[in-house]
Amino acid sequence: MYKKIIYLLLVLILFQVGGALAAITVSRVEPANWWTGMKKSEFQILVYGPGIGKSKVTLNYPGVSLREAATVENPNYLFLYVNVGKNAKAGNLPITFSNGGEKFVYSYPLKNRTDKSGALGFDASDVLYLITPDRFANGNPSNDNLDSVLINRNSPNARHGGDYQGVSEKLDYIKDLGMTTVWLNPIQENRMRGGSYHGYAITDFYQSDPRFGSNEEFRELTKSTHDKGMKMVMDMVLNHCGSSHWWMKDLPSKDWINNNGVFLQTNHATVSVMDVHAAESERNTFLNGWFTRGMPDLNQRNPHLATYLIENSIWWIEYARIDGIRQDTYSYMDFDFLARWNKEVYDEYPQFNIVGETWYNKKTSPAWWQGNSALSNKNSNLKTPMDFSLTFAMQKAFDGKADNGYLGDLFEDIAQDFVYADPYNVMTFLDNHDLGRFSRKEDEDLKRYKQGLAFLLTMRGIPQIYYGTEVLMTGTKEDGDGKLRVDFPGGWKEDKVDQFSKTGRSEIQNEAWTYLQKLLQWRKTNLAVTKGKMIHYAPKNGIYVYGRIKDDARVIVIINSSLKEQNVPMDRFSDIIGVFTKGKDVLSGKVIELDKQISISAKGEYILELGK
Amino acid sequence: MYKKIIYLLLVLILFQVGGALAAITVSRVEPANWWTGMKKSEFQILVYGPGIGKSKVTLNYPGVSLREAATVENPNYLFLYVNVGKNAKAGNLPITFSNGGEKFVYSYPLKNRTDKSGALGFDASDVLYLITPDRFANGNPSNDNLDSVLINRNSPNARHGGDYQGVSEKLDYIKDLGMTTVWLNPIQENRMRGGSYHGYAITDFYQSDPRFGSNEEFRELTKSTHDKGMKMVMDMVLNHCGSSHWWMKDLPSKDWINNNGVFLQTNHATVSVMDVHAAESERNTFLNGWFTRGMPDLNQRNPHLATYLIENSIWWIEYARIDGIRQDTYSYMDFDFLARWNKEVYDEYPQFNIVGETWYNKKTSPAWWQGNSALSNKNSNLKTPMDFSLTFAMQKAFDGKADNGYLGDLFEDIAQDFVYADPYNVMTFLDNHDLGRFSRKEDEDLKRYKQGLAFLLTMRGIPQIYYGTEVLMTGTKEDGDGKLRVDFPGGWKEDKVDQFSKTGRSEIQNEAWTYLQKLLQWRKTNLAVTKGKMIHYAPKNGIYVYGRIKDDARVIVIINSSLKEQNVPMDRFSDIIGVFTKGKDVLSGKVIELDKQISISAKGEYILELGK
Repeated sequence: MYKKIIYLLLVLILFQVGGALAAITVSRVEPANWWTGMKKSEFQILVYGPGIGKSKVTLNYPGVSLREAATVENPNYLFLYVNVGKNAKAGNLPITFSNGGEKFVYSYPLKNRTDKSGALGFDASDVLYLITPDRFANGNPSNDNLDSVLINRNSPNARHGGDYQGVSEKLDYIKDLGMTTVWLNPIQENRMRGGSYHGYAITDFYQSDPRFGSNEEFRELTKSTHDKGMKMVMDMVLNHCGSSHWWMKDLPSKDWINNNGVFLQTNHATVSVMDVHAAESERNTFLNGWFTRGMPDLNQRNPHLATYLIENSIWWIEYARIDGIRQDTYSYMDFDFLARWNKEVYDEYPQFNIVGETWYNKKTSPAWWQGNSALSNKNSNLKTPMDFSLTFAMQKAFDGKADNGYLGDLFEDIAQDFVYADPYNVMTFLDNHDLGRFSRKEDEDLKRYKQGLAFLLTMRGIPQIYYGTEVLMTGTKEDGDGKLRVDFPGGWKEDKVDQFSKTGRSEIQNEAWTYLQKLLQWRKTNLAVTKGKMIHYAPKNGIYVYGRIKDDARVIVIINSSLKEQNVPMDRFSDIIGVFTKGKDVLSGKVIELDKQISISAKGEYILELGK
Repeated sequence: MYKKIIYLLLVLILFQVGGALAAITVSRVEPANWWTGMKKSEFQILVYGPGIGKSKVTLNYPGVSLREAATVENPNYLFLYVNVGKNAKAGNLPITFSNGGEKFVYSYPLKNRTDKSGALGFDASDVLYLITPDRFANGNPSNDNLDSVLINRNSPNARHGGDYQGVSEKLDYIKDLGMTTVWLNPIQENRMRGGSYHGYAITDFYQSDPRFGSNEEFRELTKSTHDKGMKMVMDMVLNHCGSSHWWMKDLPSKDWINNNGVFLQTNHATVSVMDVHAAESERNTFLNGWFTRGMPDLNQRNPHLATYLIENSIWWIEYARIDGIRQDTYSYMDFDFLARWNKEVYDEYPQFNIVGETWYNKKTSPAWWQGNSALSNKNSNLKTPMDFSLTFAMQKAFDGKADNGYLGDLFEDIAQDFVYADPYNVMTFLDNHDLGRFSRKEDEDLKRYKQGLAFLLTMRGIPQIYYGTEVLMTGTKEDGDGKLRVDFPGGWKEDKVDQFSKTGRSEIQNEAWTYLQKLLQWRKTNLAVTKGKMIHYAPKNGIYVYGRIKDDARVIVIINSSLKEQNVPMDRFSDIIGVFTKGKDVLSGKVIELDKQISISAKGEYILELGK
């Protein structure tokens, strides 16, 4: 007893000599775990705790070694770089932090990499169904509110309560419609004032937003999606975080956030990174500026942060076995970082696919961003850019005004594909959560709707369809983004109308729904459209004709944008028709002889599968 | 006497034995001469005469040899390939044609290559003045009519009588205005029904149209132009000839003219040659189709014709010592031929320049055609494409409507320059002989005119200005091409008004004239604008700012497209301004401090030369 008191006194004295009276505290460790058997042997662990940077770190585990415990400006951070040897076994890594006489051992879980499902990528044989998860279906009302932020379905910019369980309950609906892939707007925590229902202000890169559900529930949703033969695409945001992100109160270093952590409005000059005449100051303001005041701009040139962000993506893929990523505000980020991020993801998951939000009204910009672009002297490694210029061309082309020239513009837009390294691997869409909806109230005969979807689903590229398209949701950008992302009727128990079911939809909605379903279900099975090369012809008399060819699988598409029925002589299209003599219309089932003229109705379209 | 009669009888008998009663006749030899000392030692001689293809050809001259006398389908043609050794002396080459016992010796002039003037090329330090020679000035009324085609100044599509002498008499005017280079629409013979006043239906590639003057007079005009320190650009058309071309009645071979000499309308699908989805049949119709029925489409894949056309260009350069070529309907021709044509011209004349009419409403097409383009896997070798998309952007941008967005479109157009291998070597123009004129009657305050020209003459590229711009000529495409090419008032002796002289111009015309002259004369001396790199800034509040920098020579241009006077804070433009503190306005002579804001008038512009 006497000895023990003496000993205690000695320890206290030693602590005071070392100036470290307080015990070692670890407040956060990210990621929460890692795996054995990854192709890349090294991973990073972010450790956050008061004065943790002053600790000495050791790690003693068979086959695992600590390469570096890197300190940064802020002593409350440590970045551990851990090497996992090929023969390392799963278990808890004892990471020992010592400071003076104080010691703290953190047991870090190294798990077996057992799940080999998913991570399949997506391509032109898929159709992505884009869902804003807050607005689709509220399967679990008990998770609607977070902190003091309550749902309010009357406000277009508040949380409405949609969640994983809601999506999960509608997976059969989505599959029945004919979609192959679900893309959810960001699902990570947005613990922001106002709710940040859209998900683009992430406050914790490793946590699901509790209002959608837990990480585990997201993983379950992905598994259910896989079980139904569909894929899951996660929306990621590496350009910025939310201003309420936990690290904003205590940044690892000044250069963690662009412009030294001080708000600077970006000029949105997306072209400046490729524009050979851009003023350097403009390019800097673009890259270092923040998207909004509430979205501090991450500086991916900081090597610790770059590794953190890349690892975060890989963690989610490995954790939830998602199949693809949609990367937000793609062009706002550092090029070299993006090139490295793509490469490291593809190195680990060769079948994976990433689509970047390369928003610009000309094809040259997405083309510049696509991997192997001839327009750039550096390789961005991005497989799939978004073809916004096609979207804008499609939004104008199907108004059924014969001589407005917009169908010609649509052709010219597609004819620009030579700027792409791979035009078959671009994402195509009539609209998305940021754009005015393609459907229009005045489209009472559904001609615009039908032509738009017939075109989208037979044209080259990877089509994406925004939730609600199938029930003719409308909404203009002018009314605010919230109005582009309205609740799917029937997704809430209290909804009076359930448009997920046939009986809840109006006659015209069912016509639209069935048309889309027919197209989607047919598309899945058609090699020409999903794998074939494209051939097209300049429009004449307001009629655009193109074909898709994969060996003997051939499809010819005829779109009449004019207001009158016309006869189309078919001999011009011999490059597509070849030796075939008949075409079966996918939409009506009618078989049409191809040797002479084809009569096509005003604002009508044909999708003909060729046969002999 | 007796002996002579016997001899004559013998000769007659021999002729009959040989089956060649008729004498050997050579109707045409092209080119009319060649030169010693050319870098390329071989040249081609086209020989045309009844049955000439049956002759044996020999050539015996020191240092000169005949490699081949090639026959073609039509026995009335021979294509001789003659090699001129390095030491060959000028003189008449005795080309001997023999057929049976008949012989004919053609003395072919091989001249000394003595004239080393001209062939200087043109670049961004030049400004081209485009003249439609039939419509500029009639210096010699005695050459107005040809055959039964008479001039008729009341008809927009008839010949009006302009000629070389007219241009020659106005060279001082052109120089005084500040132009450095004259580009004439085609001057070769157009012996077509209807007159073909525009010159694009050539009926003899080696003859000047007599209504403009003789070959010799064209050479003299070029020499006079050189003597005044200016350059001459010739408009060439290798895509087609006029339907009255002499060879159309007796083609060398069926494949001399595309589609076997039978009219087929081209589909004008200029994008089809680069469009990866273009139907092969569409591309063929584009390339093999004729521009019009009166313009048979030359098949440059025929190797004799290809060599003929290349040699024709080189002959004109060497004969008249022109400085550059503008090539018509550039994209309608065979790519490999064009690549070879460019290369052979540049091989012979390294300083030379060629501008191709690469008409398309997007930058991607001229970019694809420019030499070393990243967009094409073949090198077209073309130094200068035409930037039509900039033209269309400029035509919309200067209307002084602040919020129409067109100034933003103009910026975005220039920002696309990364698609070009060399954006500084493209031709820029507000209009030309095929486009509605830039000037508008409603532009009563000349704001549009002044902004357009200030922009054109300070922007990157090689500017071209269409004759009559300086006196505010107007004309719309809808009124017909003839109305875009009206007579320059004062170019005809009978004209009541002479707008070549100050007294003949109205007050507003003189304001326009003097403005352009000031800009042009200043531009010649300014290194920043003619040789400098460009930096620009996205427009804000309808104001577009850009700079040109060549070492210490710096210019900043500020264009206010809005309808209100504005103050522009200058700190944003530090990339241009650097350490400079003052700007001298080229237009007003006023010196402006650059440290704070600059006030710019509604629809006004500044061109400031920076100083300290």
